[in-house]
Amino acid sequence: MYIRKQRLLTPGPTPLYPPALQAMMGSDIHHRTEDFRQLYRRVLADLKEILGTSHDVLVLVSSGTGAMEAAVSNFFSRGDKVIVCSAGKFGERWVELARAFGLEATVLEANYGDVVSPARVAEALAREPETRGVFVQASETSTGAAHDVRAMGEAVSQTDAIFVVDAITGLGTMPLDIDGWGLDVVIGGSQKAFMIPPGLAFLTVSPKAWARAESASLPHYYFDLKKEKKNAEKGESSWTPSTSLLLALSEALRYIRSVGMDRLIENAQALARATRAAVTALGLELFAPHSPAASVTAVKAPPGVDSGIIVKEFRNRFGAIIANGQGSMRGKIFRIAHLGYFDFADLFAVIAELEIILAALGRPVSFGSGVAAAQTVYAELALAPVP
Amino acid sequence: MYIRKQRLLTPGPTPLYPPALQAMMGSDIHHRTEDFRQLYRRVLADLKEILGTSHDVLVLVSSGTGAMEAAVSNFFSRGDKVIVCSAGKFGERWVELARAFGLEATVLEANYGDVVSPARVAEALAREPETRGVFVQASETSTGAAHDVRAMGEAVSQTDAIFVVDAITGLGTMPLDIDGWGLDVVIGGSQKAFMIPPGLAFLTVSPKAWARAESASLPHYYFDLKKEKKNAEKGESSWTPSTSLLLALSEALRYIRSVGMDRLIENAQALARATRAAVTALGLELFAPHSPAASVTAVKAPPGVDSGIIVKEFRNRFGAIIANGQGSMRGKIFRIAHLGYFDFADLFAVIAELEIILAALGRPVSFGSGVAAAQTVYAELALAPVP
Repeated sequence: MYIRKQRLLTPGPTPLYPPALQAMMGSDIHHRTEDFRQLYRRVLADLKEILGTSHDVLVLVSSGTGAMEAAVSNFFSRGDKVIVCSAGKFGERWVELARAFGLEATVLEANYGDVVSPARVAEALAREPETRGVFVQASETSTGAAHDVRAMGEAVSQTDAIFVVDAITGLGTMPLDIDGWGLDVVIGGSQKAFMIPPGLAFLTVSPKAWARAESASLPHYYFDLKKEKKNAEKGESSWTPSTSLLLALSEALRYIRSVGMDRLIENAQALARATRAAVTALGLELFAPHSPAASVTAVKAPPGVDSGIIVKEFRNRFGAIIANGQGSMRGKIFRIAHLGYFDFADLFAVIAELEIILAALGRPVSFGSGVAAAQTVYAELALAPVP
Repeated sequence: MYIRKQRLLTPGPTPLYPPALQAMMGSDIHHRTEDFRQLYRRVLADLKEILGTSHDVLVLVSSGTGAMEAAVSNFFSRGDKVIVCSAGKFGERWVELARAFGLEATVLEANYGDVVSPARVAEALAREPETRGVFVQASETSTGAAHDVRAMGEAVSQTDAIFVVDAITGLGTMPLDIDGWGLDVVIGGSQKAFMIPPGLAFLTVSPKAWARAESASLPHYYFDLKKEKKNAEKGESSWTPSTSLLLALSEALRYIRSVGMDRLIENAQALARATRAAVTALGLELFAPHSPAASVTAVKAPPGVDSGIIVKEFRNRFGAIIANGQGSMRGKIFRIAHLGYFDFADLFAVIAELEIILAALGRPVSFGSGVAAAQTVYAELALAPVP
């Protein structure tokens, strides 16, 4: 067997930015000291800058799901009417959360791979003027489809409802004008485009959402956003923070600022476009062709092939960890990620590996044809001649 | 100025075990792979072994406060009658949590530095046979006092109530016979005797507590212990885990097993005893003389001196980060920690530094007298002659 370097190429956790990883070695700092407050203030300020928002930015020690719960338990009361857009596994998580906390949810469902249209949201809001909130995924990680949160935000902002956007894989992969589009609560996670290990979640909170928090009555304690805001103003977190991950995040944010958030998004979009071109050239079918996200591209396994075999071949032959489908999509699709610290070299290699795996599965493949399609996209976007 | 190595000597975060810190560099593993499941199973099995319990052990991505909330929201229903022992800042946290979730709490209060006696718990249980739970801190970190959870457990186990013990600084600093003493839910945190950075919390759950979970109706989603148990059996966590900290924990647990949990506890106890001898020899007063914990020793600042000055002098003169009082004790006490990766060299240095700081504050000090008292304890406990 040849040398296989292990490469983590999934849509979260994503490839780690090495200096961020190394920054964790400085974890022996106490969280009630000026050293920590400087770190925390810098992280919050940098997050705010790269998210391009005037809203408050808060950090929680939890996975993204913890921040999703915080968005429910801090802004709603039992029996509140809400609209949930559900187009995949993470949409279903909103549904479960709404039910766990006794919200009265109208679920706008779309098939896996499809999306909920802004028109459906507008209609549902018109039918129920008492709607207190609308929940959606910016990018539905389980299917690789992106919602039109801009148009949805326009509809929601004309009502009393607040718009809660799970942008865990949306941030850094699609433009999100948080203030301009009426995105009242936007949720992110450390292990996505932020290039560091899992364990931290972020939220932005608009004035409209804060006003709602005043009357919200669902119980919460650990995820107390008003308390977090008050403490963040002092450079502290309410509870013991995840110092190691904040050190990593600080370093990653420095890098993201040097690249530019716009360029990071363009990077993901270019990789996604090249991936779509490559897999299409290889005769494979995209799972979400109509509203493709730039966070991750879901590809249908060839007829008669379990996508798990493809995932396994990537790992066993090449040390590449790519994602299977989740939930009911397991075995049907595989997913190639683009969010965060991914480059064209990663993609060229993955496509070349995919070609070999398809050949090993007995599929007709012209070696290099998928790679060529990806190269052509690169050339179209960036082939400036060497001066 | 002389070289000052920065040393983190607080009761959480505690000094980090270097190989555990370095293990975080391997964070690029995916949490839905066999590599991860092996890691997670090993961590859960090692935790169970060092805690010496047959109860289920679960890990959460949160600070210890998150696990405290989980112990409320998973085992109780709105309006449940509970008894809360409150003898410091963390006792007050149980009170706040109970109120946030609508429990009807009888609070047994003790002054800071004192403890709630088991007799008071037994009396309160006798007065209210409908009591559904009793909450306590094994070691109250804010005051350095330890509760007699063994005697309390005996009283609680004769009733239908479950006994919920915040052992965040109790684990690894005092014997806790989880099964034998009727400790139904025991809570720990990564940044304490476990020698790694903050960001993970643990719980043990007894069969009696699981039975209670069946009828408990408080809302919860992120902290869903039944779901965690089900997933843990498959070697997985419900939500994206904090991989970096699990890698660190795995390494620290390997070390703790090699030392032996009993020896780790003896280490903290020896350091605590030596600390009490040293500060007493220096004419300082212990804050919790009657029920001293081995996790941390709280010392009253000399009359007329703000303890914050002492904490600041430790940092500025010697790079040593020690803890001030918390909450209403701020400025009145300072705290010397012993839990986890602390040794006698740390202590000898801290006492010598304290002597110098007292002298700088104009207090009469005989240099070396505090250190001598600590050395004498060492000698009594461990001065085997060189063979």
